[in-house]
Amino acid sequence: MGSLLITGIGSLVTNDPSLGNGPLGIVTDAAVVVSGEEVVWVGPASRAPAADDAYDAGGRAVIPGFVDSHAHLVFAGDRTAEFDARMSGLPYTAGGIRTTVAATRAASDAELSAGVARLMAEALRQGTTVMECKSGYGLTVEDEARSLRIAAAHTDEVTYLGAHVVPAEYTADAYVELVTGAMLDACAPYARWVDVFCERGAFDGDQARAVLESGVKRGLVPRIHANQLGHGPGVRLAVELGAASADHCTHLTDADVAALASGTTVATLLPGAEFSTRAPYPDARRLLDAGVTVALSTDCNPGSSFTTSMPFCVAVAVREMGMTPDEAVWSATLGGARALRRTDVGRITEGARADLVLLDAPSHVHLAYRPGVPLVSAVWRRGRQVV
Amino acid sequence: MGSLLITGIGSLVTNDPSLGNGPLGIVTDAAVVVSGEEVVWVGPASRAPAADDAYDAGGRAVIPGFVDSHAHLVFAGDRTAEFDARMSGLPYTAGGIRTTVAATRAASDAELSAGVARLMAEALRQGTTVMECKSGYGLTVEDEARSLRIAAAHTDEVTYLGAHVVPAEYTADAYVELVTGAMLDACAPYARWVDVFCERGAFDGDQARAVLESGVKRGLVPRIHANQLGHGPGVRLAVELGAASADHCTHLTDADVAALASGTTVATLLPGAEFSTRAPYPDARRLLDAGVTVALSTDCNPGSSFTTSMPFCVAVAVREMGMTPDEAVWSATLGGARALRRTDVGRITEGARADLVLLDAPSHVHLAYRPGVPLVSAVWRRGRQVV
Ligand SMILES: [Zn+2]
Ligand SMILES: [Zn+2]
Repeated sequence: MGSLLITGIGSLVTNDPSLGNGPLGIVTDAAVVVSGEEVVWVGPASRAPAADDAYDAGGRAVIPGFVDSHAHLVFAGDRTAEFDARMSGLPYTAGGIRTTVAATRAASDAELSAGVARLMAEALRQGTTVMECKSGYGLTVEDEARSLRIAAAHTDEVTYLGAHVVPAEYTADAYVELVTGAMLDACAPYARWVDVFCERGAFDGDQARAVLESGVKRGLVPRIHANQLGHGPGVRLAVELGAASADHCTHLTDADVAALASGTTVATLLPGAEFSTRAPYPDARRLLDAGVTVALSTDCNPGSSFTTSMPFCVAVAVREMGMTPDEAVWSATLGGARALRRTDVGRITEGARADLVLLDAPSHVHLAYRPGVPLVSAVWRRGRQVV
Repeated sequence: MGSLLITGIGSLVTNDPSLGNGPLGIVTDAAVVVSGEEVVWVGPASRAPAADDAYDAGGRAVIPGFVDSHAHLVFAGDRTAEFDARMSGLPYTAGGIRTTVAATRAASDAELSAGVARLMAEALRQGTTVMECKSGYGLTVEDEARSLRIAAAHTDEVTYLGAHVVPAEYTADAYVELVTGAMLDACAPYARWVDVFCERGAFDGDQARAVLESGVKRGLVPRIHANQLGHGPGVRLAVELGAASADHCTHLTDADVAALASGTTVATLLPGAEFSTRAPYPDARRLLDAGVTVALSTDCNPGSSFTTSMPFCVAVAVREMGMTPDEAVWSATLGGARALRRTDVGRITEGARADLVLLDAPSHVHLAYRPGVPLVSAVWRRGRQVV
């Protein structure tokens, strides 16, 4: 495969301010040259070098592939009836997350793998070129390990979330012992990250610290589900432990915001969860104004946010969370890369991985301006056109 | 073209309670037979008659094509910069709707027609098989008439909205004289409907009445933009005049709700407009509980709601307007048909037009459960597969 010149780009989001206008580094009338898996040239179309092949973007916009840094894709079944009941104001007595755990345990490896592949393909068609994937619906040594093994077959960004919920057969402390012991032994080889759901009813601050510190000892890097349903110690713990990301951040005190602003932990906001549970949205504006790095992700899971759509998250973040269209697009691309501590994705610059999304629109603002409209018309991943 | 058996439908929304469960008349393990442009058989797959061709839905859901009864598609230009400024909290001094009027007047017929075709094709890919189209960005006799002529080349549901806004060169009363006189003469031959924007700053109750009554005298049927930005006489006027629909209905008094409940006028709610202007949503629950017929539409237009996505409107209506997923899907299909006084669309029953949408999902609930995800995987319109 030779080099490819993508030209006729009406508006190119590079996410490199040194290359163009504003924080998104926007270049108009732009071109990009891709060689192998990498971007090798970015600039005005009029100065583009020659390449073996050419693709005319027809004046449309190109942005970096979305980096979805928070998703739960290894599961079986869905929870349509529970969602329907919740949105219809009807009682629903079945087991919530435990329904998914039971279905996941009962599913074959092939079924689980097909589910991950289907959702990742769906996300790719909507422009997501990097997608994180957590375990957390197995909750036994064997089922967590196979969840991670399956996830690792589909993505490099694999997160051990044995501490998703306390299974009925354990006390919280006994389960933490398993998660930090035999389960960690079985899971660490497949994972890059360790995660815990730190929330009233799940794992408290001490338990979350134990889970994350045990993972760090095994070479995993911490991230955390924190402050989703109420105030709690999760966000400050994340900053203290140098976690890559604190995810949800819906209920924050001033001390939480100050902690995030003082540290290196990214605040990953997940508007799909609030959308699908009719919960109040996190205040992105407050975080941005305090200087916190914000990422946007889908939280794709069958219980509280069954969307794979980063364009949808961008539109909702602008509508509901006080983000400008520019900020939301940045957070869904380079913000996600920061939350995964990746420097090779989330930007369109020389040497970056050639993950590019062509929009059927003249500018990235249309992702918020045209909500719900499938605007992704082509996707290149590692230099290959995949959509 | 012979008859077609669509079988293997996991869940079929017929919108005919006599055919299946609940108000949506849901048939599971269903089949539909299409012949020519019509549905000729609906029922359990096990009892389906033979047909010339067969299509296997693979257990997925089929719903009636969406009926989008409110859209403004004849325009030129877009208003990205205005949207961006609004959502970024920045001042924006350019002309709002007048920007679109100027661009529309300056555009060629071919440009305007291509714009309508592009948006209707985009809507069709998202499952919309009937789409209304208004004038209202011409605001001269010639430009309104050509807007309607262009709209009529793309849809049967053409609405004369000369009374969209008072152009700068007129007083409101002088413009109403034009709209009810020479402009009506030029426009009536192309239109089925007459519409007026009844709102403080646009046309008051007396002016709206004059516009609608003049249209009725020319054989047009009234519909109205009413009670979007504040309380006003629009909704009650609609009911009094027997309008097919009162659209927006965001700010309603108890008297307005009672009027709608007592009459035949459909309340058409347009959540895209509130989404894109950060305005409070209409209360669909209140209307439904009062017995009002509710439709959902996109209000597709470049200023306040630049979406063509009926699935997006369904998801937002469930999140924000107190609708159940069933109610939202009904309102986006048969509700829209009611708002257009159509009996041939919005349902999948013997004799109905064969407008069917295959979802990549086991049930119609996924339209709300999976927000933003493009779930439409095939569309038949007038019996022909078009997506
Ligand atoms: Zn999560
Ligand atoms: Zn309108």
